[in-house]
Amino acid sequence: MPFFNVLKSCDNTSARTGLLETSHSKIDTPCFMPIGTYATVKTLATDEIKDMNYNLILSNTYHLYLRPGTELLEKFKGLHGFMDWDGSILTDSGGFQIYSLSDFRKIDTNGVEFKSHLDGSKHYFTPEKIVDIQRSIGSDIMMVLDVCPDANADIIEHQNAVNITSQWAKRCINHLKNNGPKYNYEQFISPIIQGGTNEELRKQSAEQLLELDADMYAIGGLAVGEPKDQMLSTVELLNTIMPENKPRYLMGVGTPEDLINCISNGIDMFDCVMPTRNGRNGQLFTRFGKVNIRNAKYREDMSLIDTNNQYNLSQKYTKAYLHHLFKTHEILGCRIATQHNLSFYNNLLKEARDAINNGAYNNWSKKFIADYNS
Amino acid sequence: MPFFNVLKSCDNTSARTGLLETSHSKIDTPCFMPIGTYATVKTLATDEIKDMNYNLILSNTYHLYLRPGTELLEKFKGLHGFMDWDGSILTDSGGFQIYSLSDFRKIDTNGVEFKSHLDGSKHYFTPEKIVDIQRSIGSDIMMVLDVCPDANADIIEHQNAVNITSQWAKRCINHLKNNGPKYNYEQFISPIIQGGTNEELRKQSAEQLLELDADMYAIGGLAVGEPKDQMLSTVELLNTIMPENKPRYLMGVGTPEDLINCISNGIDMFDCVMPTRNGRNGQLFTRFGKVNIRNAKYREDMSLIDTNNQYNLSQKYTKAYLHHLFKTHEILGCRIATQHNLSFYNNLLKEARDAINNGAYNNWSKKFIADYNS
Repeated sequence: MPFFNVLKSCDNTSARTGLLETSHSKIDTPCFMPIGTYATVKTLATDEIKDMNYNLILSNTYHLYLRPGTELLEKFKGLHGFMDWDGSILTDSGGFQIYSLSDFRKIDTNGVEFKSHLDGSKHYFTPEKIVDIQRSIGSDIMMVLDVCPDANADIIEHQNAVNITSQWAKRCINHLKNNGPKYNYEQFISPIIQGGTNEELRKQSAEQLLELDADMYAIGGLAVGEPKDQMLSTVELLNTIMPENKPRYLMGVGTPEDLINCISNGIDMFDCVMPTRNGRNGQLFTRFGKVNIRNAKYREDMSLIDTNNQYNLSQKYTKAYLHHLFKTHEILGCRIATQHNLSFYNNLLKEARDAINNGAYNNWSKKFIADYNS
Repeated sequence: MPFFNVLKSCDNTSARTGLLETSHSKIDTPCFMPIGTYATVKTLATDEIKDMNYNLILSNTYHLYLRPGTELLEKFKGLHGFMDWDGSILTDSGGFQIYSLSDFRKIDTNGVEFKSHLDGSKHYFTPEKIVDIQRSIGSDIMMVLDVCPDANADIIEHQNAVNITSQWAKRCINHLKNNGPKYNYEQFISPIIQGGTNEELRKQSAEQLLELDADMYAIGGLAVGEPKDQMLSTVELLNTIMPENKPRYLMGVGTPEDLINCISNGIDMFDCVMPTRNGRNGQLFTRFGKVNIRNAKYREDMSLIDTNNQYNLSQKYTKAYLHHLFKTHEILGCRIATQHNLSFYNNLLKEARDAINNGAYNNWSKKFIADYNS
């Protein structure tokens, strides 16, 4: 049983559909992964995630390491048991969180020292430790520890990040090879291509990591503040370098338009906080663009939230009611908006796959973007 | 079709079962009403309330008047349409909220002036206006405007409260009679017996209100800080005065033990914030007493939340997981605890009704309280 198969490629673009298979689920690609930072996709029960046809979620190694900790997760034979989720789980490595959340970190070639954003306690992550944490989590797909500079870092910092990330990727993969999965099912691991928006560094990073012949490849260090065109040109570049027969995961991206543009450039997997976080702030994604439901113009809008959305609550409650829930800070509002957005994202990806499979991706994507911006 | 029928009376106590019928639902009594202050039972969608077999909820006139306001509710032909709830709705009159939330109120015989707790704006409620607001809300059961002194008020204040409450009750009932229901279904109205814990005043209040021959009768002004035994003796007293053939509603009560003791004294209807509010703070009601799931001893407790509880999430997730959700301030924790508690309350009432119908209430109630305190 292969981990990944490309099923159908688009004639006009690099878009392709595929099937990703872990011990827990089969995932149609291109796919979007809802984010479940602390062992829950915020506001939702696992049944509800399943009901929206998601069977792969992302969780955060850094956060789970701090709370509830690996010891407890091991008692549950991993995160699946702890949160009662029988789909697949991908965990990021914590690299990004260490750089974005911790107000102190010190990188040496062996690993990274950082302070917890919760209590300031000091911790030290090595590539091997990160793999062990993800072994304990029982991630179906784990990510290597990487160094993720911010968009404004200079070339020296990016060059260092590329070098260390490559060394650490090798150590992570070897450590998993030597120790095997923690429980009775396979655990895959993905290196992360760094290099900012510098072409040479991206090539260098990709080539060094390709030598490791890993299960899949991820693009990190984008959607961290760089201009949108540089993000896209970096993905375009890597599309020509990354192996075609392995899943390609673009970390932390993005808007509906980003997803469509990056699918065109051969990306298979996405994750982003936008549908969940923006939902909790009252921003809804719809076929015809974003809706800020807190806006006064929805106060008396008796139309349903979104009749284009498959999700039942979006076709059950009105905009005026959802507006009221946000104005009164009612939790139900966050729930409805979160589910609405995740349903929208899932539907977007499903339509993209259908279009690719039907040889109609190019037209579909143009129409989708035109509608979305109308 | 009568509004209320007593079905079965207990031989040993004043407990009885009954059937309450509005245009929206048939409600088995004794019953508990979940509180949906701002047009939502906090954290829950209406389907979930239904799934827990609730078909009568309480909402708050004072809050709904401020947000979203009666004008918008009228566009939806009332609260049922606005929040998509096809069960019954009882609304309190706002009397209690004016006294507990507003930092300014001025009572004269015509009505009460108060400041909104939201923005300090001044408003004036008359008995007639309160009925009109509840007509606009479309409440199946409305409450009269009452004066509700706090537990430490002196006898003069209580005497005044009784007198004004009786005058206002008459005006409310007349106003509803003269104007009829707002929409195409019947709206009932209940006076509220006041008088604190003073026997004479309670008798006076009850007798004055009984003259109005209302659809049902409520006991207000309890559970506002008075000693528990005085609360119970007041209910005992009123049990001997209130008509047997009409529903008796004890407002704002209470703990599982309170409910059982008051059912024994002929109470048919209850509401209380405890299952919902305490749930959001991590307190669970179980057959064997309260559980504070935030307590460190649950950190590694792999047992299910409550196998005695009918509600599916209580039998799906573990205590350790729920503990984690509360420690990480995850909304899902509030949802699970809220549903767990409302399911517990519903089940408690169902068991009580079954016991009464089977002539076993006395034994059942003793065992329940013994288990609960064990």
